[in-house]
Amino acid sequence: MKARVHITLRNGVLDPQGKAIHNALGALGFDGVREVRQGKVIDLDLADTDETGARARIERMCEKLLANTTIENYAIELC
Amino acid sequence: MKARVHITLRNGVLDPQGKAIHNALGALGFDGVREVRQGKVIDLDLADTDETGARARIERMCEKLLANTTIENYAIELC
Repeated sequence: MKARVHITLRNGVLDPQGKAIHNALGALGFDGVREVRQGKVIDLDLADTDETGARARIERMCEKLLANTTIENYAIELC
Repeated sequence: MKARVHITLRNGVLDPQGKAIHNALGALGFDGVREVRQGKVIDLDLADTDETGARARIERMCEKLLANTTIENYAIELC
């Protein structure tokens, strides 16, 4: 089973990478960009066949390793 | 208009970050993980109102700055 996990900074957490991209886009002439936020995407290929079990396992992976839940949100998408 | 851009390594391009996550998951006891690939997600908030124009502009942003198209693919999603 394939899964995609999005890890994004929580609202209000400073995002220097997003800010740098925003500035660079402006310097390249791309106007009208209001905000840029950068996050991570992690694509997993799992041996699991059960959707509910897989989702619970990925949640544990996020809590233990993939995300820093103090400053990051995660969203799990099973494909 | 909000947009999300996924930037992922092309197939066959070595992904040391993904490999490190894979190893760490194994060390934490998460078995049955076949593959892990890590990419970036960039969330944009644009002043554009026209979908076709916005998509074309984001494509140019990807080609010029956001992605290294030699080794990375990008996918644009308008929300």
